[in-house]
Amino acid sequence: MELLPKEEMQRAVKLALAEDVGIGDATTLATIPANALAVARMVASEELVVAGLDVAVETFHQVFSGLQIKRVSADGLKVEQRQTLLEISGPAQAILTAERVALNFVQRLSGIATVTAMFVEAVQGTKARILDTRKTTPGLRLLEKYAVTCGGGMNHRIGLFDMILIKDNHLAALSEEPPNAVGAAVRRAREKYPALKVEVEADTSVQVQQAIEAGADFILLDNMTLDEMRTAVFWVNGRAKLEASGGVNLQTVRGIAETGVDFISVGALTHSARAVDIALDF
Amino acid sequence: MELLPKEEMQRAVKLALAEDVGIGDATTLATIPANALAVARMVASEELVVAGLDVAVETFHQVFSGLQIKRVSADGLKVEQRQTLLEISGPAQAILTAERVALNFVQRLSGIATVTAMFVEAVQGTKARILDTRKTTPGLRLLEKYAVTCGGGMNHRIGLFDMILIKDNHLAALSEEPPNAVGAAVRRAREKYPALKVEVEADTSVQVQQAIEAGADFILLDNMTLDEMRTAVFWVNGRAKLEASGGVNLQTVRGIAETGVDFISVGALTHSARAVDIALDF
Amino acid sequence: MELLPKEEMQRAVKLALAEDVGIGDATTLATIPANALAVARMVASEELVVAGLDVAVETFHQVFSGLQIKRVSADGLKVEQRQTLLEISGPAQAILTAERVALNFVQRLSGIATVTAMFVEAVQGTKARILDTRKTTPGLRLLEKYAVTCGGGMNHRIGLFDMILIKDNHLAALSEEPPNAVGAAVRRAREKYPALKVEVEADTSVQVQQAIEAGADFILLDNMTLDEMRTAVFWVNGRAKLEASGGVNLQTVRGIAETGVDFISVGALTHSARAVDIALDF
Amino acid sequence: MELLPKEEMQRAVKLALAEDVGIGDATTLATIPANALAVARMVASEELVVAGLDVAVETFHQVFSGLQIKRVSADGLKVEQRQTLLEISGPAQAILTAERVALNFVQRLSGIATVTAMFVEAVQGTKARILDTRKTTPGLRLLEKYAVTCGGGMNHRIGLFDMILIKDNHLAALSEEPPNAVGAAVRRAREKYPALKVEVEADTSVQVQQAIEAGADFILLDNMTLDEMRTAVFWVNGRAKLEASGGVNLQTVRGIAETGVDFISVGALTHSARAVDIALDF
Amino acid sequence: MELLPKEEMQRAVKLALAEDVGIGDATTLATIPANALAVARMVASEELVVAGLDVAVETFHQVFSGLQIKRVSADGLKVEQRQTLLEISGPAQAILTAERVALNFVQRLSGIATVTAMFVEAVQGTKARILDTRKTTPGLRLLEKYAVTCGGGMNHRIGLFDMILIKDNHLAALSEEPPNAVGAAVRRAREKYPALKVEVEADTSVQVQQAIEAGADFILLDNMTLDEMRTAVFWVNGRAKLEASGGVNLQTVRGIAETGVDFISVGALTHSARAVDIALDF
Amino acid sequence: MELLPKEEMQRAVKLALAEDVGIGDATTLATIPANALAVARMVASEELVVAGLDVAVETFHQVFSGLQIKRVSADGLKVEQRQTLLEISGPAQAILTAERVALNFVQRLSGIATVTAMFVEAVQGTKARILDTRKTTPGLRLLEKYAVTCGGGMNHRIGLFDMILIKDNHLAALSEEPPNAVGAAVRRAREKYPALKVEVEADTSVQVQQAIEAGADFILLDNMTLDEMRTAVFWVNGRAKLEASGGVNLQTVRGIAETGVDFISVGALTHSARAVDIALDF
Repeated sequence: MELLPKEEMQRAVKLALAEDVGIGDATTLATIPANALAVARMVASEELVVAGLDVAVETFHQVFSGLQIKRVSADGLKVEQRQTLLEISGPAQAILTAERVALNFVQRLSGIATVTAMFVEAVQGTKARILDTRKTTPGLRLLEKYAVTCGGGMNHRIGLFDMILIKDNHLAALSEEPPNAVGAAVRRAREKYPALKVEVEADTSVQVQQAIEAGADFILLDNMTLDEMRTAVFWVNGRAKLEASGGVNLQTVRGIAETGVDFISVGALTHSARAVDIALDF
Repeated sequence: MELLPKEEMQRAVKLALAEDVGIGDATTLATIPANALAVARMVASEELVVAGLDVAVETFHQVFSGLQIKRVSADGLKVEQRQTLLEISGPAQAILTAERVALNFVQRLSGIATVTAMFVEAVQGTKARILDTRKTTPGLRLLEKYAVTCGGGMNHRIGLFDMILIKDNHLAALSEEPPNAVGAAVRRAREKYPALKVEVEADTSVQVQQAIEAGADFILLDNMTLDEMRTAVFWVNGRAKLEASGGVNLQTVRGIAETGVDFISVGALTHSARAVDIALDF
Repeated sequence: MELLPKEEMQRAVKLALAEDVGIGDATTLATIPANALAVARMVASEELVVAGLDVAVETFHQVFSGLQIKRVSADGLKVEQRQTLLEISGPAQAILTAERVALNFVQRLSGIATVTAMFVEAVQGTKARILDTRKTTPGLRLLEKYAVTCGGGMNHRIGLFDMILIKDNHLAALSEEPPNAVGAAVRRAREKYPALKVEVEADTSVQVQQAIEAGADFILLDNMTLDEMRTAVFWVNGRAKLEASGGVNLQTVRGIAETGVDFISVGALTHSARAVDIALDF
Repeated sequence: MELLPKEEMQRAVKLALAEDVGIGDATTLATIPANALAVARMVASEELVVAGLDVAVETFHQVFSGLQIKRVSADGLKVEQRQTLLEISGPAQAILTAERVALNFVQRLSGIATVTAMFVEAVQGTKARILDTRKTTPGLRLLEKYAVTCGGGMNHRIGLFDMILIKDNHLAALSEEPPNAVGAAVRRAREKYPALKVEVEADTSVQVQQAIEAGADFILLDNMTLDEMRTAVFWVNGRAKLEASGGVNLQTVRGIAETGVDFISVGALTHSARAVDIALDF
Repeated sequence: MELLPKEEMQRAVKLALAEDVGIGDATTLATIPANALAVARMVASEELVVAGLDVAVETFHQVFSGLQIKRVSADGLKVEQRQTLLEISGPAQAILTAERVALNFVQRLSGIATVTAMFVEAVQGTKARILDTRKTTPGLRLLEKYAVTCGGGMNHRIGLFDMILIKDNHLAALSEEPPNAVGAAVRRAREKYPALKVEVEADTSVQVQQAIEAGADFILLDNMTLDEMRTAVFWVNGRAKLEASGGVNLQTVRGIAETGVDFISVGALTHSARAVDIALDF
Repeated sequence: MELLPKEEMQRAVKLALAEDVGIGDATTLATIPANALAVARMVASEELVVAGLDVAVETFHQVFSGLQIKRVSADGLKVEQRQTLLEISGPAQAILTAERVALNFVQRLSGIATVTAMFVEAVQGTKARILDTRKTTPGLRLLEKYAVTCGGGMNHRIGLFDMILIKDNHLAALSEEPPNAVGAAVRRAREKYPALKVEVEADTSVQVQQAIEAGADFILLDNMTLDEMRTAVFWVNGRAKLEASGGVNLQTVRGIAETGVDFISVGALTHSARAVDIALDF
């Protein structure tokens, strides 16, 4: 990720404009003369970490490619309240028609970047890195994963296709229940997909041991106590990367980080981020 | 709205599966035998108002149309923690591949329905009705507006095309500034789009008066004090519908409702709803 | 409408070129050298009102973006026979390949504008305005509604989504038959879609009265006699807008307009307009 | 052609429903209970030749696949006024939502079939066959060409790709003007596209001779007098097929046919056919 | 054909990039700085006939439109080993991401052109022309038919729609078996599709005779011996064009050509051409 | 892979039918009665390994879903000449229209499976596994990679997104040339994409050592001599997987396998496989 995927962005903007503008922005067409010009400023109405300015620019330009846009801030920057992010000038009709969709994107993506930055700051000084999950908004995964990197977070796998992650439901769904389901599953995955990294969820220290022996690259410690995590870190001793998940919030994350795990994944970065307040001032 | 738009839903599910599954669910293909069967239950992990079960069913069926699904709850119902919503049975591979996307939809939509229901309950006994806004997730507007109705809310306009709403930025963008910009804009809109209802934002009592005289169907009272709203309600006296917006939250909404306005619109219903906790248990 | 919707136009042109050109213009590729240049003039072969020049320009440019096109006329103008509309210069191959599709669009749209202008002229001096209907060519509605405005007509609703229009078939389809079906239907529509204008068909004066009482914005007088229309105009007295339809042609339209109705809708503007004669001369 | 192209039809119906229904049929959703059932009859309101019943059926079924439809007539039949064409039964909401689009298709296509049948009847007893042209509605060519066959007409080439037709503009665009441009163009076309039939426009008897010598399969006699046509028929004597065009209407067509030409092409079949009157009765 | 169909090419490149690049070129993004510049040369690693340079250019430009590309060779040229075809300069990331897809196209298309040129050379001096078939790669037909022309070959029909070719399976599928099935089929085809050329497969001299009498434009001599072909050529004597197919390879093709047939069609041109070796050197 | 991706297959078949059938199979429509029934057999005309029967079935069913198809063989089986693969029965028109596209797919995919099986057999008894590459037919990658597995081969990465593979051109494009470019690139890749496996090309033993030290999962030995490969195998000693490529053919592959490398990748499996001979007999 780290780079905003351009085609994905264009598709998302196109879809959003289609559902908002439909057959035309009746209000603007009725009230604003076609030759009226305007200058508008996109302004942060609260302190936030910026993400998605390219998406806003794309939105304005899909409505009218002749709009002049000056970037006053940049993705990944932490800005104060009242900071201007973009200056848009050109036909007032185009600016007004694009306004809501542009804001919807930037408010949502900056909301994700802002909450991610809080988690990243909370674990400052430990080796733990903050990961996102697949609990993203349907249709916006790549944009949201990009926003996580703007906040200093790191991307877990993109989807079901680019990494193996064997979870409790996979183990539960195996018809027979061998004493070493974890090991068997890891081995089967490594055999079938040599090109993919393999992670497995482990709920007990026995399962951690089985995962290591089967050659897992990553082990997911889900809903473990801090003590259990510390034990896992000690016992694994670098033979696999450890990821903690479950019950992670801004109060608990530092304690988890201090157990020595390599990664902490946080679903709330994307599934429950509050949209930050950003306005378009004429 | 009120009916979940079927084609829209199918498109959204298809897109979400494409971005999650990509070229294949490597984990499931590697670890789960093709002939393994399973029964899974989608269960509310907290008290919530249900929305989006059809979307979940669509997701499971797009992955494999042969999955058997039993609906144990229904959209619009308030359910207790641990309540089962759906029972899915069939090939374990298909259930596992669809799991995350199905949950992403239902958690998000039920989150919207749940918070909407809180606002609706807060204004119980007044005449005010809770409206959504255009501050929706790009690409999911129709689904989210449906979720608002599941929570007892009402839909404002769908987009820029089905109603006129003249806001402060429209007035600001008018090149000349006549003393009666509000009235002129309303009249122009009525003239050009006789088939559409016309709403106009009014920030002062003078503007309210101009809006009434120009024949506005609705007047948007944005960021007014309670006293100002009461005055507007008194003065308008039913000649137009009044909508309040700005600074609306669960603490303030009842006070606003008691001023006598007809509608209260709340952007947070869709732009900042927390995903509620729902799990898929095998 | 009034503005030709750009994306819609591009889509329509693309589709039309695909079905006409298919895998290639064999005749032109076989007989015209790639480097042959030409100048062509699009000329009105009869008196007509112009509509769709942008669509023609788009067609030529989709075939080859390097064609030079000079606009000699403009949409909405009434032109004499032999008047040049466009001058196109550049590679002869591109002009020949685009010719038929460009003409097909302009002939059809100008045909609509021309017949609309005749109806508009026929009601000159009355307050009645000429409306189109939803009886448009499948796939070309927005272009055709634009052509109606070029002829001086006004657009009725765009589709089923942007206005309520309760017709006789809706009333017939209501399972129970209350004595006041009209009023009940209007009230239900206003309740469910406060953002949309409501029109209802009324075939008798009792139904007109019920419509008024229920607060309809518009009343459709379908196939009424001139006397019945005059009575309705008198009785309604401005409390709702009145639209006449049925049996409208160039002979009858002035009489209808003189009854005092606000609008007269004419399906034939779009469903049976003759293509006017326009040629491309080399 | 002769068979209604299924995929094309489905695409056209989908597009037409999208532009008409948009985000939903507000009137029907507001006024008709979801469980109301209805029976409707599609009825010819004038004498006509039927075309497009499959398109109507497709329209109703795209709106709701559970509608029961009984075909009472068939494409290609001439029916009297008041003849029922289809009987549709099922949910009233679905029938009402599909009504306009279904009628728009059948009225237009039957209009084409009806006027085609008049031309075909007018030349009865001669060897001339009635052909359509490429002057079709953008986006509906295949459906309209099918309608022509329902009226007893025959299809000329489908588009620019499946046959060579060298017209006056091609000859005009050739940079050099050899004394035998017609012959040179025909030979070049036969050389480059051996798989395609070659037709050439000839305005003089010299050009007819050149076309024959160059091996043209068809010769287009455009805007010739009856005498000139008779001469061409005599002179060509079966060495190529002859097609007449220009100035063809119901008054002139029989005279043209009696000159002995093989085909008469009529643009008005598709570019100016009146929509016939068909109603949906509940 | 002969001209590379532009829209087709763009679609094919887009699809190929989508399946190769997917959500991003991880290797390049991880290892190459965004501002690194590079110059690369596309070089023939063996002697070959060039085809598809436009497709390569399109590929590089779809990845990044700012790449500078200098054409050093051209489609249709025979080049020596080590000959440079294109020089690409600009951001190294874009060149590396596009490399494989660009090469996949050019290697395949040049492979087809190269083998076609061998067949064309083998029949040098006879009147026989080398034709391709419909045995092309699914999804790439137009590009491959273009490559055949780069090698000096000629295109048979494009698909099932632009010419009639009655083969043994059609005759076999006719339910009744008249003594003159060939003639009946040819006549039916000419009657129904006057605009299309008609070819028929003949396996015996009786069938050849029937084809001639029924007016076939082409006769396909499938798997005939050289003697049988010579007899057919003698007997037909120019009344129809003759095409040979079956058992054609570089050893047999000249002998077939010398029988006097007009065309020889070779499925292997497209279904089994070896990709020639072309490299991208930095 | 290993499972034929269904949606991909449907898309590929749809595209192939579109380009072949276009607006209709004129020959079949003209000569075969709509009610004629037929039984056809798809038969191997040479010994081969089957791949793609599902694609053939999909093709027949997209043309007419009512065709009855009996599978007599299965993907992955080695069959003798004259072995029947499928039996298709139903309307003759549908079978004839689908014939060529169905055969084009099965001949090409079975060609890939057949040549893959030869390579797999050649290395029988060694630990080396045969891999494909990204040198696939544009637009058919997933189908071709599936065909490789039918022949007993194994899939390398799917595209640029699911694994890191640092090749010579990446190293060449690095602006600065550090003494340890290999190690630096591997480390950067592991840091940026922890979820992806990392492979690097090594041309010298020093580079192999750098790759191991930097933690590469796979090392690509490109164009090494057998001695160099043996040295690399000895020195690496299992610390990374080794893949050989370059100059691999049926004569050389066993020698390469006996050096002890883990994988041998062969571009020719997909870029130059001959289509095997398969016929459809009526």
